[in-house]
Amino acid sequence: MNVESDLRQRLRLIVLTRPRPAAGRLERVVYEILEAGCPAIQLRDKESPASELFRQAVALRKLTSSFEALLFVDDRFDVALAAGADGVHLGPEDLPVKGVRKAAPRPFLVGYSTDDPAAGARAARDGADYLGVGAVYGTRSKPGLQGEAVGAERVAKVRRAAGIPCVGIGGITPSNAGAVAADGSGVAVMSAVMDAERPGAVVRQLLEEIGRAFPSASQPTSDDI
Amino acid sequence: MNVESDLRQRLRLIVLTRPRPAAGRLERVVYEILEAGCPAIQLRDKESPASELFRQAVALRKLTSSFEALLFVDDRFDVALAAGADGVHLGPEDLPVKGVRKAAPRPFLVGYSTDDPAAGARAARDGADYLGVGAVYGTRSKPGLQGEAVGAERVAKVRRAAGIPCVGIGGITPSNAGAVAADGSGVAVMSAVMDAERPGAVVRQLLEEIGRAFPSASQPTSDDI
Repeated sequence: MNVESDLRQRLRLIVLTRPRPAAGRLERVVYEILEAGCPAIQLRDKESPASELFRQAVALRKLTSSFEALLFVDDRFDVALAAGADGVHLGPEDLPVKGVRKAAPRPFLVGYSTDDPAAGARAARDGADYLGVGAVYGTRSKPGLQGEAVGAERVAKVRRAAGIPCVGIGGITPSNAGAVAADGSGVAVMSAVMDAERPGAVVRQLLEEIGRAFPSASQPTSDDI
Repeated sequence: MNVESDLRQRLRLIVLTRPRPAAGRLERVVYEILEAGCPAIQLRDKESPASELFRQAVALRKLTSSFEALLFVDDRFDVALAAGADGVHLGPEDLPVKGVRKAAPRPFLVGYSTDDPAAGARAARDGADYLGVGAVYGTRSKPGLQGEAVGAERVAKVRRAAGIPCVGIGGITPSNAGAVAADGSGVAVMSAVMDAERPGAVVRQLLEEIGRAFPSASQPTSDDI
């Protein structure tokens, strides 16, 4: 298994945390998610000040480390660095991929959000390690946003253009995760897990659906060298 | 001249940039300020997204480097790192000093805002290189804020408690800068320079007043070892 296919396996499911949870709840939910086998967590909170985001990131770093899961911080490269997270996930309004890559050499991981194949290829050249592509099936996480659905085919298209691991995001549930995973892309989920009464159960369902569809590392795909 | 007194000299005047200037104006004003001899600039913009803050930081890095002036970025350690700034200035809602210090060893500079001697001493122990203390004479930069004036004596008090260079901030003009500088503290200014018709002229006046009052490096004070 080479480094890229190892990363692809670890990015088969990323759970994004819901912003501003009630005190204490975030750690409890993340523990349940990790215990269910989730290989990657992304701390996402666009409201809280950096001091609070850092406190959360440190708490999630302890949890994710004990489960050997990856931890990403959304937007804030500084919070990711200071908390010892594995990487940062950037969007078009954040620091440019190239600037972050230069300041933080690998193995620090840099993700970038795009639904455009050319922008994805550019981000890969600039040093991104993976892409978040969506919204695949619309979104429930961004109120007021139409959440145009780009479909699972777009994830595959961006992935072929960029040549790095991709993760579909937006409206993904256990019932539609397989279509994204079938091509070897990962899946990122927020609402379906964070709003569930039993988040761990949803993570198990997702991993099962993804595992059924996802080309395993022992069956090399055209991406593997 | 030891490292601390060298830093103290370079922090005798910091000009903070005004948020969201009209396009092009920021670079032009900063050029004028640097040409007038300002030894340090702090990029301050709490409104713009990180992508825009980064663009500004890169532009100011080029300017400050050509004048051998220091560049600090307010709040955003990640923008400071990616743009190659000399340091970051943190407040109580930002990343903790200790976390940033760990992620960015010296010579990267870490400043911290406080008006409390005990908090200043703690920040120094956590790895801060200097403190911003205020509001010395109130403030015009934070609308809606009362801007309680702590006075020049407080800057001196925090400086004695922390044992690192301090910079008074808040309502400072050429006519009152001397009182802060007399004790060997530096001066940070936003409105008096950024709102001036001739920012360079105000910087020259400030430097003159500070130079008159400020214990020079060739006359060791009790701080010098």
